[in-house]
Amino acid sequence: MRKTTTKLADGRELIYYDRDESAQRDARDRRPLEPTASLAEIRRDPVLGDWVTVAAHRQARTYHPPADECPLCPSQGERLSEIPAADYDVVVFENRFPSLAADAAAYVAATGEPLSAEQPAAGQPGTDPPTAEPPALHLTRPGVGRCEVVCFTADHHASFAALDEAKARLVMDAWTDRTAELGALPDVDQVFCFENRGAEIGVTLAHPHGQIYAFPFTTPRTVKMITQANEHRARTGRNLFEDLLAAELADPVRVVLTGEHWTAFVPFAARWPYEVHLYPNRRVPALTALSEAERAEFPRLYLELLRRFDRLFGSGTETPDQPPAPTPYISAWHQASRRGGAELALHLELFTIRRTVGKLKFLAGVESGMDAFVNDVSPEAAAQRLREVAT
Amino acid sequence: MRKTTTKLADGRELIYYDRDESAQRDARDRRPLEPTASLAEIRRDPVLGDWVTVAAHRQARTYHPPADECPLCPSQGERLSEIPAADYDVVVFENRFPSLAADAAAYVAATGEPLSAEQPAAGQPGTDPPTAEPPALHLTRPGVGRCEVVCFTADHHASFAALDEAKARLVMDAWTDRTAELGALPDVDQVFCFENRGAEIGVTLAHPHGQIYAFPFTTPRTVKMITQANEHRARTGRNLFEDLLAAELADPVRVVLTGEHWTAFVPFAARWPYEVHLYPNRRVPALTALSEAERAEFPRLYLELLRRFDRLFGSGTETPDQPPAPTPYISAWHQASRRGGAELALHLELFTIRRTVGKLKFLAGVESGMDAFVNDVSPEAAAQRLREVAT
Repeated sequence: MRKTTTKLADGRELIYYDRDESAQRDARDRRPLEPTASLAEIRRDPVLGDWVTVAAHRQARTYHPPADECPLCPSQGERLSEIPAADYDVVVFENRFPSLAADAAAYVAATGEPLSAEQPAAGQPGTDPPTAEPPALHLTRPGVGRCEVVCFTADHHASFAALDEAKARLVMDAWTDRTAELGALPDVDQVFCFENRGAEIGVTLAHPHGQIYAFPFTTPRTVKMITQANEHRARTGRNLFEDLLAAELADPVRVVLTGEHWTAFVPFAARWPYEVHLYPNRRVPALTALSEAERAEFPRLYLELLRRFDRLFGSGTETPDQPPAPTPYISAWHQASRRGGAELALHLELFTIRRTVGKLKFLAGVESGMDAFVNDVSPEAAAQRLREVAT
Repeated sequence: MRKTTTKLADGRELIYYDRDESAQRDARDRRPLEPTASLAEIRRDPVLGDWVTVAAHRQARTYHPPADECPLCPSQGERLSEIPAADYDVVVFENRFPSLAADAAAYVAATGEPLSAEQPAAGQPGTDPPTAEPPALHLTRPGVGRCEVVCFTADHHASFAALDEAKARLVMDAWTDRTAELGALPDVDQVFCFENRGAEIGVTLAHPHGQIYAFPFTTPRTVKMITQANEHRARTGRNLFEDLLAAELADPVRVVLTGEHWTAFVPFAARWPYEVHLYPNRRVPALTALSEAERAEFPRLYLELLRRFDRLFGSGTETPDQPPAPTPYISAWHQASRRGGAELALHLELFTIRRTVGKLKFLAGVESGMDAFVNDVSPEAAAQRLREVAT
């Protein structure tokens, strides 16, 4: 794999990842782009204890552009996109409308506020000693971090599921490289690689792509996982995720796919109609800790899962020329944060918001108001269906 | 207020609430309805610690019926709906496709499992003593509880915002009555009154209506609130919600509306583009604890907030005959649970998923994967806008 780091016209970083070790990546960004000023603020919700990012500058971001103005296609002649080259393998660049950006100095200059707002240690609720000074209810911190776009195909009409294994491996290598590089930034606590697929999910650029968020805090979901894993350790002396994987394998009613190094299963308390979690059999905290054998096997299993997702809602009357409508999905890598990684297990969570042909699962009052999920598909039935749609 | 409790043909309860103390409610449900068997299961997510309801029987529920088959309009001639009467004021009935139902005996008979699965005490993470016996990873409990539908207008094309104050007060009295009655059921831990409005939220019945869920557990959102409130008490000796309301009133940059007994403000770390929380100035745990003066003032303030929400995304060119498209919203009452109510404060959370004209806020990878919300509208700007759209 060859990595070439370049800059876009407004100073943002763009990185090519090529299978071809001799790839020359010297195309220059010829657009007259002004640097964007990004001043997101992160606020602590005093009632829930979660960090929320307020990014008011993002309302003007690109929204469903026509295909001939796609910013993620390669540049062609005078059709200049975010990617200066005329073709690419995998390319990662900083989002022009980021929720989080590295420009802490600009934040300090603009607000006069220091970068000192402190976050309670992740996964340690209730253990802070009482202080004489009552804590402020309204805590803020600068929205430092980084948001990157991951383009994994130059083909506007392709999808991740259509990649070959070598290409999917290159994407995994890019995720791993970004995890290492972003995770080493001084303000970054957690690196989150993910893909949103489908307008139903809210995707506003049709060109297939993933994203990476480098958060300056441990995300609320990860804090909950750390809490549960710490409690399990305190109770049993063992690791929660290792016990969980062993339990799923011992009674494989929810197991969808097994490899030599990975296992995919529908979680016991799935929130979404079709949801699969893919774990390496050996617990590691992050993508950077995977072995070569684990990396080598991943593409085949992941591509198989994505292809099964696309077969879930077929009518049975499709032909190669008229495939079923693509299944909208979210694919999310969970990995350790800097503040609380000892008990975590790297894994990928893949789920769709479609519950049956033509119907979506919405997050209405019960879910969005109370975080109380209601799933209309039993996890065992979902696993059965995901085994049935194997090639 | 006159309350008349009746039964539908399949045994479900239906309750009329009438302003007219002499209302006669003796219409009989003439439909040939079979009783539905409802066997939802509640499962504990071992990785997040949350309870998730698996309700596989709900896939067949009514989905966008044509207006002339609306199940929430009054029955007319041979057009028989869920409401046997030819007209109604406010009516509440058990959902025919409930996520949670009271039939615990049916659950035991069908599964052979006892009703003994135990829930850890809400808001007490990490305080359970280590046990010699490791806890099971996969905990289930029966989906006992209750799901009710609240019809607050017989007019298929109306909305809550179009009610008069007396009618809104009758709805509040119905919520209060349901909180008392459902909260007294032996298996119920928390009563949740809410309204989902708009197809964008996932509402599948166009007739305006609200819902009530009586949960057998404390919802994950409430558990988080209890944790934060308990920590605040431990640190400061004071109540979190009282301190919060005092802080918002002391610097009213996010205050939208104040009455003698209620205050509405945009929360400091709002997750949604337009979000307002409405608190009684005197902290009470639940609807049942409000005073007559507090009940009397609520309708005017709440109706005003709903009407302002409908004005948020107008183009300015609307006429009385062509009003702006209704704003989709979720309106959610937060009140104490039986297991952890001492520090909570009754309040209503009202928010829309619309972020600007024609654009919705979706919960994609960052939110649905990591619970890390990104809000594109600053809470202070949202409050300013909500003050501007006053009548």
